Amino acid sequence: MPSRPQRAPIALLTDFGYHDHYVGVMKGVIATIAQSARLFDITHGIPPQSVMAGAIALRQSWRFFPKRTVFVAVVDPGVGSARKPIAIDTQAGARFVGPDNGVLSLAANDAGMLRIVELRASKYRLKDVSATFHGRDIFAPAAAWLSIGTRITSLGPTLREIAHLSIAPATRRGKGLEGKVIYIDGFGNLVTNIDRPALDAFAASFRAVQLLVRIDKGATMEILQAYADAPTGAPLALLGSFALLEIAIRDGNAASHFGLGEGASVTVIAST
Amino acid sequence: MPSRPQRAPIALLTDFGYHDHYVGVMKGVIATIAQSARLFDITHGIPPQSVMAGAIALRQSWRFFPKRTVFVAVVDPGVGSARKPIAIDTQAGARFVGPDNGVLSLAANDAGMLRIVELRASKYRLKDVSATFHGRDIFAPAAAWLSIGTRITSLGPTLREIAHLSIAPATRRGKGLEGKVIYIDGFGNLVTNIDRPALDAFAASFRAVQLLVRIDKGATMEILQAYADAPTGAPLALLGSFALLEIAIRDGNAASHFGLGEGASVTVIAST
Amino acid sequence: MPSRPQRAPIALLTDFGYHDHYVGVMKGVIATIAQSARLFDITHGIPPQSVMAGAIALRQSWRFFPKRTVFVAVVDPGVGSARKPIAIDTQAGARFVGPDNGVLSLAANDAGMLRIVELRASKYRLKDVSATFHGRDIFAPAAAWLSIGTRITSLGPTLREIAHLSIAPATRRGKGLEGKVIYIDGFGNLVTNIDRPALDAFAASFRAVQLLVRIDKGATMEILQAYADAPTGAPLALLGSFALLEIAIRDGNAASHFGLGEGASVTVIAST
Repeated sequence: MPSRPQRAPIALLTDFGYHDHYVGVMKGVIATIAQSARLFDITHGIPPQSVMAGAIALRQSWRFFPKRTVFVAVVDPGVGSARKPIAIDTQAGARFVGPDNGVLSLAANDAGMLRIVELRASKYRLKDVSATFHGRDIFAPAAAWLSIGTRITSLGPTLREIAHLSIAPATRRGKGLEGKVIYIDGFGNLVTNIDRPALDAFAASFRAVQLLVRIDKGATMEILQAYADAPTGAPLALLGSFALLEIAIRDGNAASHFGLGEGASVTVIAST
Repeated sequence: MPSRPQRAPIALLTDFGYHDHYVGVMKGVIATIAQSARLFDITHGIPPQSVMAGAIALRQSWRFFPKRTVFVAVVDPGVGSARKPIAIDTQAGARFVGPDNGVLSLAANDAGMLRIVELRASKYRLKDVSATFHGRDIFAPAAAWLSIGTRITSLGPTLREIAHLSIAPATRRGKGLEGKVIYIDGFGNLVTNIDRPALDAFAASFRAVQLLVRIDKGATMEILQAYADAPTGAPLALLGSFALLEIAIRDGNAASHFGLGEGASVTVIAST
Repeated sequence: MPSRPQRAPIALLTDFGYHDHYVGVMKGVIATIAQSARLFDITHGIPPQSVMAGAIALRQSWRFFPKRTVFVAVVDPGVGSARKPIAIDTQAGARFVGPDNGVLSLAANDAGMLRIVELRASKYRLKDVSATFHGRDIFAPAAAWLSIGTRITSLGPTLREIAHLSIAPATRRGKGLEGKVIYIDGFGNLVTNIDRPALDAFAASFRAVQLLVRIDKGATMEILQAYADAPTGAPLALLGSFALLEIAIRDGNAASHFGLGEGASVTVIAST
């Protein structure tokens, strides 16, 4: 008896929030096409229209899912405009489905893009495609078909390139390493664009005994190992689960405490 | 070897929110009775006790799920009162489970009601039925039993009628088509009771070159095809994913921008 | 043909919220290890770092899930500190995984602790364990391995005891039974530490005809059977789905109406 072919899991990430039925409808569409596909919510709490936040959350997530997972990421302020609906196959095995506005780009670059297609084949869309809800009408069906073995090349013509987002790297200026806040999580932790290699190179060049972190509002803090290494209510910096430098308040909310948002300056200072 | 009977999917819609364990407990009850039933969340973010919002979200969702899906909708301000717990079978195949307060009525009418039963059989309830949490004690078990093949008539006696909600249609007054806001989504889009047939009939009768939309606070806007057809920050009207006229702000929140809520007036004006 | 071994369900409860990808990443880790394990969300809306709220929600939930369910509860302000990651097997069959800070203790005590282990075996953790995200690196993998049949004793050395939380019982003072608010749900209902046996014993000792409930801000109310027994907007007390006395406002929010929070005093008075 031949074994039933394994369906690839599908993981969803959107800015649709939890107030409405929009995500539920996408799941219904998927379940109708791919009855036994396993569905996972990554999050639907991406701030509305925040393509960059969606791209960062997807980049941080895809590696932890089974190899052939199909990721659907819908943060799509340009729905109904000229931006193309796309699917991407990658060297790592992961597939990505969503609008071509950069939301897939950080993850797809990390996974190694093999092929990009435009989701144009009407056979693999819902019959009526609205101008406002491609999550339901184009992206959910494409993901479902991919998960049950439809070839990506059946979904539409191959594209040569996608729209890219880029995160500016931290830069050296005098005795400081200057970065900025690129993501604020639900605990109010301020995640920066400063990664461990940049920190290590910076420290090495100054033979620094200790690195300190200074933020816009003047506070200066040490880099610790864990939130719990700071006393309750105290600010700290650490290399968090993003593998990026982040600013936190022990058992508190750094974003509201400091009144800082995305783009705020964060400087690492060598203390010799 | 006989194939394992296919379990019907179960889809949940409530106003229980995401703060507590209430939805999780319903899922535990379902999983205990129907081990392999597939469970989907439509949303649990219906505003507390908003039976109409729940009814609209359910109507907008059910069509997109597999044919035999069992929908459990719990927006139930009258839990523990005389309102009856019911299940409905329909011509379209969908089954609906919930309180008889109208929350099921818009969807069930669309699906074509075949049979209504009162969920009275103690065999298909939890042993102890509270006066405050019928989602756990009555609705979740009923849905689980239906999903694994229990006949709807086993769940209790047949009823002749259910409580209905109705949405007043848009009305003509002089040179205007007057409607109102019936649903506000999580993006702040103002969804009205004006549908495409009403719009088309209105436009035809005036040989209108263009239709404009005017709202309570005086703003007037065009009807566009997609959110992206308006410049960032500009108001617009469109036929959205509900197939109803809605008012939006490109990349913004129309509800908070205009300070409008459910029941606000929206008038379509023929511009010749 | 041997039947495929049944995988135990996994149920997740955290304070990670719905803004980020953190819960999604935990699910990816679980799905990678235990492909066919069924995953349930209890809630991720526990207030940040509220170990007691997490412990209460878990205690209220676990009974309703299938017998061998593996529960992962992550409310973990001490992540990266000396607090141990643990797993517990129980007489009732349920398994509990999480930090040893009390969040598992109320449920595990009810279920009857059989064995406690520290999650120290590197084979059953992710390769790189961060100091900030044990949900992903330690707890999710442990739950996944348990769900597919790994023995709990393989996960690490046995511990003799766990950290316990305790909820102080209501106390008699003169003609009153004094309790306090221990949990506030998403509807704003104020759940107290006063249970039915305490209420019954108190009433019996006074041969009370009626019990009244008085709260901090002076309001006094009757104990009713259901929310719907009070008129809209009126306060009431009842034995809710927690089987504990709770204060509610019919179709309203008692916490914001009365401005009360956790720890607020609630007194039952015998009216003869």
